[in-house]
Amino acid sequence: MPNDNLKIRRIAIDTYHENVAYLNRDCEIYRVEGFQALSKIEVCANSSRVLAVLNVVDDPAIVAPDEIGLSEQAFRQFNIAEGALVTVDHAEPPASMDAVRRKIEGERLNQDDFHDITRDIVETRYSKMEMAAFLVATGQNNLDRDELLYLTRAMLDSGERMNWHEALVADKHCIGGIPGNRTSMLVVPIVAAHGMLIPKTSSRAITSPAGTADTMEILADVNLSPEHLHTIVAQERGCLAWGGTAKLAPVDDLLISVERPLGIDSQGQMVASILSKKLAAGATHLLIDIPVGPTAKVRHMRQALALRKLFEFVGDRLDIHLEVMITDGRQPIGRGIGPTLEARDIMQVLENRPDAPFDLRQKALQLAGRIIEFDPDVRGGQGYAIARDILDSGRALAKMNGIIEAQGARVIDFAPSTLYQEILADKDGIVTHIDNLQVAKIARIAGAPMDKKAGVDLFKKLGDPVQQGEPMYRIYAQFPADFKFAKKLAEQNNGYNIDDNEGPVFKPMVDL
Amino acid sequence: MPNDNLKIRRIAIDTYHENVAYLNRDCEIYRVEGFQALSKIEVCANSSRVLAVLNVVDDPAIVAPDEIGLSEQAFRQFNIAEGALVTVDHAEPPASMDAVRRKIEGERLNQDDFHDITRDIVETRYSKMEMAAFLVATGQNNLDRDELLYLTRAMLDSGERMNWHEALVADKHCIGGIPGNRTSMLVVPIVAAHGMLIPKTSSRAITSPAGTADTMEILADVNLSPEHLHTIVAQERGCLAWGGTAKLAPVDDLLISVERPLGIDSQGQMVASILSKKLAAGATHLLIDIPVGPTAKVRHMRQALALRKLFEFVGDRLDIHLEVMITDGRQPIGRGIGPTLEARDIMQVLENRPDAPFDLRQKALQLAGRIIEFDPDVRGGQGYAIARDILDSGRALAKMNGIIEAQGARVIDFAPSTLYQEILADKDGIVTHIDNLQVAKIARIAGAPMDKKAGVDLFKKLGDPVQQGEPMYRIYAQFPADFKFAKKLAEQNNGYNIDDNEGPVFKPMVDL
Repeated sequence: MPNDNLKIRRIAIDTYHENVAYLNRDCEIYRVEGFQALSKIEVCANSSRVLAVLNVVDDPAIVAPDEIGLSEQAFRQFNIAEGALVTVDHAEPPASMDAVRRKIEGERLNQDDFHDITRDIVETRYSKMEMAAFLVATGQNNLDRDELLYLTRAMLDSGERMNWHEALVADKHCIGGIPGNRTSMLVVPIVAAHGMLIPKTSSRAITSPAGTADTMEILADVNLSPEHLHTIVAQERGCLAWGGTAKLAPVDDLLISVERPLGIDSQGQMVASILSKKLAAGATHLLIDIPVGPTAKVRHMRQALALRKLFEFVGDRLDIHLEVMITDGRQPIGRGIGPTLEARDIMQVLENRPDAPFDLRQKALQLAGRIIEFDPDVRGGQGYAIARDILDSGRALAKMNGIIEAQGARVIDFAPSTLYQEILADKDGIVTHIDNLQVAKIARIAGAPMDKKAGVDLFKKLGDPVQQGEPMYRIYAQFPADFKFAKKLAEQNNGYNIDDNEGPVFKPMVDL
Repeated sequence: MPNDNLKIRRIAIDTYHENVAYLNRDCEIYRVEGFQALSKIEVCANSSRVLAVLNVVDDPAIVAPDEIGLSEQAFRQFNIAEGALVTVDHAEPPASMDAVRRKIEGERLNQDDFHDITRDIVETRYSKMEMAAFLVATGQNNLDRDELLYLTRAMLDSGERMNWHEALVADKHCIGGIPGNRTSMLVVPIVAAHGMLIPKTSSRAITSPAGTADTMEILADVNLSPEHLHTIVAQERGCLAWGGTAKLAPVDDLLISVERPLGIDSQGQMVASILSKKLAAGATHLLIDIPVGPTAKVRHMRQALALRKLFEFVGDRLDIHLEVMITDGRQPIGRGIGPTLEARDIMQVLENRPDAPFDLRQKALQLAGRIIEFDPDVRGGQGYAIARDILDSGRALAKMNGIIEAQGARVIDFAPSTLYQEILADKDGIVTHIDNLQVAKIARIAGAPMDKKAGVDLFKKLGDPVQQGEPMYRIYAQFPADFKFAKKLAEQNNGYNIDDNEGPVFKPMVDL
């Protein structure tokens, strides 16, 4: 039953990814329509409409009986001035939930089903719990590889697609989970210095102590408009920007906002998420890094191989040149964990300092070498040597400085945080295990990535001999409370194993 | 990082089954803790604590930087006075989500897992989307019957359990889906008149045009305290109350608040929901009614039999005497659909009026007869005759009047609503199909159950001959807009099929 009695009021409440509308309990429409709190309603004015979850208000100071309040998100999305008259109606449940229910019942979905679902999600017709139902129903082994292809295509089609107007647009992506693994910030300047186009966009940390966007932000602005991005890339052949400003595969962001708090993380959804984002970003050639290790996301070689096949199957059908590298994920890469500490490592490698972390340099060269071999003019097997020459000659540093200048250089301050504590070895021996998850957690509790200088700086890596009382790593924090909790966590479990000998060595590597 | 700087403020916003907390963006704790909107936080004061979803507020008139706002639900649950000082912390994700993730990965869960999950849900540690994940992961064929037993027991143990201090406490339950099927309001007075204890609690309609509580409310109060309920039952041997006041299997209500909007409805969850509620209500003997028909919840006999086995398996192990009746679910029962129209049908049957709907009378007698045979003193096969004698003699009516008086009689007004429209047959023939779902939808759109007199009154049932232009049913409404939409829906599809002959007859019956 449409109606047009309500005035829009902007309510200064931030409800993140969920639109909320507020109706006074004494509002005539609330009573007549048989709404109840948490009902989904549709607010319309002229050609604009927005879907929102209903909260019922008993305080006319917040919303009066002749008003409808919209949370910040809903108000922004609706984009109609305060005071304008609107109609309110029950929102029909999204039609595509039928397909989700069919999936729950064990049916196989087709391309149209996935397109319908992603369209409804992008139009915010799905509530959080409907998205959770979709994610669980399509999670784990519930999607075959054809369905995964349909899902990836639907996610890609859900948003805009960048076009760089070149035949070869290179990109790389690591499936994540390894602290300190900031290879993109080395690979991009090396590959761009070779002359290949590599317009890299990255995410900020969500559950990790730093994302590439957080670390790059120590050196330069990363929040760039799509137009600015194009100018920079035209000039420098590469960039290191935050990917949040473009509307690429928007359904992915919405699904991630449910997936993360649920802690569900299926391989299929990861493949669809990565490939749709990269295709939307305009990549034609993509290198995927899958680290394998006992505390990495992928723990067994057979799992890494199955994942590789999935990437290849979908990538080939969506017409992207895709290669997968399986790498050593047994321990953090480099020394620093946290935005400033990681940026320091990166600059040490680019400046060819003798104290630069060797593993970070080696991994970046191997990845850059593989990408350089996407170049038809490069002979197979020569990529690594080309990458090394670019780095050793200082051309990678020059390119990085060019990118930093183009994006907007920041005043760099590598001075360490004043609150710090060293974590000491409790016996003599050899480091035989470093727990990626525990070390990342300590860095996060210490304040990373919010506090740029917070984190963990590793002094010892796998295979290193240590003596009792020798520092294994140092925790940095900015706030005393964070510092206390991080130290307490490290006291409970410092994430290191020290044994008399190296013990059985975990060997995940094929490519290295 | 605990802290104690925030004063509680009650925010007059009704967020239904979800606790919401409001923090001002300039609040020191918000910044330091790294909270973000939609984070789950834990608010503590002395021994009290409450979990809530965080909304961030930019308007100090709603919540000031030194305050924490609690929505009505959260404030009530927290039960601490406004202005008291509290600490705020990140809420850990519920530990039992690990079990849910194991279930998603295909593992079998044990009794402890289900107890942990239901405890966390009752303590509101689960968000809506976590509940959705649990429901989808345990939905459809994902629970074996042992797991279903564990789930039922865990749901039962999640709340209080009534004790009637008698060896035989009878109850009945219909799995639903058939409009007009208000047999409880006949079965209870018949069985109570026989002298058996039958303290029946029912739900209100959620997705149907009327629940037993809505229909009984036309005649008497149904919102009774547990103490009042005991007094009535001690006096009358039966009652017809709304079940919402007791804290029986509270986890069920929480799960239903997610299940309904998602439209997911697995057999396993239905069995667990029904049996946990009935056991918590103190039933020792239970009759389950499973209607079967092409537009009923259960559409095939084999499905009804599988469901019967599930009920029997779980019921036997939870020590309840359980019988299942599979009944005719091809069409609505009785004539009226909607609270007032259904109450009118009930009173016609109780008063033995010649125009009383025969099918409603017959079905009620059969169900009541089976329940009466739970009485060890009744010879097998004699229940139906006893029930019929009680009804025909007027003892059932007298008992119903006693129950109505005890619960608190209401002024009954069976006068029809002034807005009505007859739906006419478009050709001569025989009624061969009545769509339960469509007829229920028309009644709901017309305003039932909110508008007590709204609904549908059926003149023709299966097998009845009709002539072109003859009324098949009448729609009643209270509001012109509802009336318009209901008529439009009936024009699109009136829910009736008329054929030249009876055609192939759908025969679901075994017991009738």
